[in-house]
Amino acid sequence: MVKDRIEATYSCVTCAIGSLVTLFEKGLVPGEKKDTTMRAVLKYFSDLDYNQPPPKIGKEMHHIIREAMENPDPYKDVKYHYNQVLLDQLPQLQGKVKTADDPFQLALRLAIAGNIIDFGPNQKFDISATMEKAKSVSPAIDDSEALRNAILDAETILYLGDNAGEIVMDRLFLETINHPHVYFAVRNAPIINDVTFEDAHMVGIDKIATVISNGDDAPGTILESTSPEFRELFDSVDVIISKGQGNFEGLSGCSRNIYFLLMVKCDHVASFLGVKKGDFVVKNVNGN
Amino acid sequence: MVKDRIEATYSCVTCAIGSLVTLFEKGLVPGEKKDTTMRAVLKYFSDLDYNQPPPKIGKEMHHIIREAMENPDPYKDVKYHYNQVLLDQLPQLQGKVKTADDPFQLALRLAIAGNIIDFGPNQKFDISATMEKAKSVSPAIDDSEALRNAILDAETILYLGDNAGEIVMDRLFLETINHPHVYFAVRNAPIINDVTFEDAHMVGIDKIATVISNGDDAPGTILESTSPEFRELFDSVDVIISKGQGNFEGLSGCSRNIYFLLMVKCDHVASFLGVKKGDFVVKNVNGN
Repeated sequence: MVKDRIEATYSCVTCAIGSLVTLFEKGLVPGEKKDTTMRAVLKYFSDLDYNQPPPKIGKEMHHIIREAMENPDPYKDVKYHYNQVLLDQLPQLQGKVKTADDPFQLALRLAIAGNIIDFGPNQKFDISATMEKAKSVSPAIDDSEALRNAILDAETILYLGDNAGEIVMDRLFLETINHPHVYFAVRNAPIINDVTFEDAHMVGIDKIATVISNGDDAPGTILESTSPEFRELFDSVDVIISKGQGNFEGLSGCSRNIYFLLMVKCDHVASFLGVKKGDFVVKNVNGN
Repeated sequence: MVKDRIEATYSCVTCAIGSLVTLFEKGLVPGEKKDTTMRAVLKYFSDLDYNQPPPKIGKEMHHIIREAMENPDPYKDVKYHYNQVLLDQLPQLQGKVKTADDPFQLALRLAIAGNIIDFGPNQKFDISATMEKAKSVSPAIDDSEALRNAILDAETILYLGDNAGEIVMDRLFLETINHPHVYFAVRNAPIINDVTFEDAHMVGIDKIATVISNGDDAPGTILESTSPEFRELFDSVDVIISKGQGNFEGLSGCSRNIYFLLMVKCDHVASFLGVKKGDFVVKNVNGN
């Protein structure tokens, strides 16, 4: 059964342009490039077909931004920074998970909380407050016990990575479930603050999982743009764990056994899922 | 002395497009017109000179929207609705002002609170909560005692109206100060939910002030676009009371004795004024 697929809406335009303004406000675009970049993005949206999954639009928009900026990786330093910030907190959080009543549930919530690190238009995020919230939050959709059982039963797991910083919490979750056959997928090139091989190595994911590229640089998993090798793995593993809203947007409607872990970032996706913006979600979609 | 004038910034683009999305979400744009309207607005912004006061941009954008929609007044029903909502509350609020310790201060705060009725991107406003807040709020910039004295000393007052709904609170304020020579300025044609002659008559402002057009339909007072008759009055009255952020944006830097009453709607203006978004402001600028 193929479920409905989420498509872009007009508010995605506001959000996308807001994410460019965030880039400006963070000082990541040199002053003399701002006008050119903004105009190029507005021109792109003025001609756009809106009936596409949002990450497909995000991919093209960020290609335009990088070209206008003449910079292939505007978020490079920001990604490094947030990996380091979360690595600094890791030992303390590892201790908390180890001594928790239910280490699986705490590590799962921290993995979702890590998703707060984002560079969309709502750029003001508070990592510490979100980590604290993770300890007591109840996901608005909670298939976590099904996920626990699926992991126990699975011979192979494919974990779809999302953002820098957040990936440190993915490491903590993977350490906690301690499964012997996990593939961790990254983007094949920099796109916003999404994880690439470099991030996976920096935070030590390569020590506990087989890191693979999905062959694409959309800020979400758009299956038709990924590599044949990735798709083969995607089709053959027992369980897929998908992190973040971008991966959810790309894979909504997909016919596979997927557990989506995300923090809901906008009203459009909130309404699609029947939850509220800011909610934690652990949602199983099993298309088979 | 001419003070700094506020100009548009990149976040004004996000905000403007957000206000168009609000128009969509409120069902004010027929489905088949949405794409054309959005594309026309994006095209306009992709070619725009950003070094202009925001209301000048708002004026052109809304001309484009109206043309794409083939509708000269998309907000007509919304304006009528909010005038009626506030008229229904008027008798009760008149009673509260009459029995208040300081009727002037309460009516002033209610006039600012009325400014919450807005159709920008942050469209979720709660009129009752804001009216309640008005009773106890302290303006972040508070030249209200200077305003009280200026009104007592003035022979003539020019009051620059802002939005429908809000205009009912302007009536309450004008009833409270009970000054014999007030001119109340409206736009010369519909623009967003800004007040025109029709609104002034509907809420009875014409019974307590001389209603005049400013000769322009920018959603803010851009002096150079107003009529010579309006400018003559603007230059000759003793005190000008300017309502709302749009009028402030257009008149910032102007060399006249103006009291700006507004609720701050965005971070850009908040930062210009050194206050926070949502703050109430009573600010005197005396250029002479």
